[in-house]
Amino acid sequence: MTEKNQISFKRACVIGVGLIGSSLALALREQKLAAKISGVDRDADVLARAQKLGVIDGGETDIEQGVRGADLIILSTPVGAVGAICEALAHAAEDGAIIIDVGSVKGAVAQAATTLPDRLHFVPCHPVAGTEQSGPEAGFATLFKDRWCILTPLARSDAPYRAAVKSAEALWSAIGAEVEIMDAAHHDLALAVTSHLPHLIAFTLVGAADDVESVAHGEVIKYSAGGFRDFTRIAASDPVMWRDVFLNNRDAVLEVLGRFSEELAVMQRAIRWGDGKALEDAFARGRALRRAIVDAGQETPAPNFGRDRESGEPV
Amino acid sequence: MTEKNQISFKRACVIGVGLIGSSLALALREQKLAAKISGVDRDADVLARAQKLGVIDGGETDIEQGVRGADLIILSTPVGAVGAICEALAHAAEDGAIIIDVGSVKGAVAQAATTLPDRLHFVPCHPVAGTEQSGPEAGFATLFKDRWCILTPLARSDAPYRAAVKSAEALWSAIGAEVEIMDAAHHDLALAVTSHLPHLIAFTLVGAADDVESVAHGEVIKYSAGGFRDFTRIAASDPVMWRDVFLNNRDAVLEVLGRFSEELAVMQRAIRWGDGKALEDAFARGRALRRAIVDAGQETPAPNFGRDRESGEPV
Repeated sequence: MTEKNQISFKRACVIGVGLIGSSLALALREQKLAAKISGVDRDADVLARAQKLGVIDGGETDIEQGVRGADLIILSTPVGAVGAICEALAHAAEDGAIIIDVGSVKGAVAQAATTLPDRLHFVPCHPVAGTEQSGPEAGFATLFKDRWCILTPLARSDAPYRAAVKSAEALWSAIGAEVEIMDAAHHDLALAVTSHLPHLIAFTLVGAADDVESVAHGEVIKYSAGGFRDFTRIAASDPVMWRDVFLNNRDAVLEVLGRFSEELAVMQRAIRWGDGKALEDAFARGRALRRAIVDAGQETPAPNFGRDRESGEPV
Repeated sequence: MTEKNQISFKRACVIGVGLIGSSLALALREQKLAAKISGVDRDADVLARAQKLGVIDGGETDIEQGVRGADLIILSTPVGAVGAICEALAHAAEDGAIIIDVGSVKGAVAQAATTLPDRLHFVPCHPVAGTEQSGPEAGFATLFKDRWCILTPLARSDAPYRAAVKSAEALWSAIGAEVEIMDAAHHDLALAVTSHLPHLIAFTLVGAADDVESVAHGEVIKYSAGGFRDFTRIAASDPVMWRDVFLNNRDAVLEVLGRFSEELAVMQRAIRWGDGKALEDAFARGRALRRAIVDAGQETPAPNFGRDRESGEPV
């Protein structure tokens, strides 16, 4: 994208001032893409903290008040809230406003956007970035740098809408993301594989590990460096956000979960039968895939994610 | 442990000079616990590289040659090789030698040790530490620092054996590990929970993700920051080592895998039925467990394992 300097907004309004909303506000500010940034959040304390942190210039707990005068509206709430927000925006948002979201599910978001009038331009977006932390304190301006952001434009071909899609692309590029455009259904399947299923598995493993009565809770913690601790990172993600992902991407998640369960049954049988060759062959696939992810710039090459760096581990 | 300065060995022999063997050799050297450290490896090239790196003073490809004069013998091979090595040690090792291993399974190792005469003192050990990398180049002296090392002594109560167990404890303490003693069966169940099942799940997920035909291999890599990349770390671990873990800890792994599968079926049903409350309640458990692991010093508090530190993320 070369349009970095061609976009700027009079007033951006971030609805939902958590990890992602705050990071986006900070990135917009750093790149001087919005003259003013306001926030909307149900929680007045979150707004006060975000303002104190310099994330937003001011905030409102009421959406209709909050979006007044905004030419860019960013939805960064759990996906389940998008429908009700669109209903509020339908009459409260300014003519011509560009609306983007950051949800991990795109089909349900496109469905929610059908209540919006054509004078508003909703471009569904999913920046594939985050941490396991929540709240405005967790936000940082470089969260989206070198990460992919997937846009799934609505089925509209009018010129103002096409211009809005271009602006959304330019916005993400300006804050360091790589932009990809695809249809919502493909997005929802691809992300079911690379994000939703991994989270489901991690949440499930954390629950199952703590339920083996003969192994003490303290032992699960003490010996977690054997591998378990890796899973607890994404299992520490926001429960409401993830509840909404699974409620809104049911079919794709059940499809990839079915494939995982089949593969797990194959592994289980190989263990039961003592089939060392099958196990070794299956295990050998991991290194190549990790190397490809590191080579693509989506992962650190440092052993143990570099988390033991301070202890003298080579990097 | 206060015995740090009370142990020292004339000659340590490390059988299997990979990540763990090299790290242990470097740690012994740093703490001046062995006057001389030799290596044994089937691969002469590994020995040459390890010697060049200063990990070992010299090496042999033949076990019987290699262990001559050694008063400390360290087995750091895949668990499946321990039986054959014990057979060789039965006649080649010096009277009174202390033998320790580092295997992730302890019941099978204890079984393999039954071929040893009483003049040799085998203390099964499992340092719960590692990285996803392999080979002598991956070793570093602080790998075991602040990690737990579990000892599962054999059913022997003679004084020389009890002294050997004390020496093994002192050795691990001297290189920074926390020592815990338990029986082999309990170890194998606890580690099936915190290490073996997580690895099996990670290997399986990596295989399953790459098998969804309608999602391109490149997409799995590009969008891996959504969660998938976390799993690829442990799935990049040594396939032969892990094959041997599953072949040698079958019953405990099948037991905890059964529990995981049940829990996964419950989650699957909650998704299918749209039971948001069940999902949210299950997901809410993750944060507390991760916090406990961080508080126990077994994990970094930095978001994303600190791997994005260079990009300006707060730590």
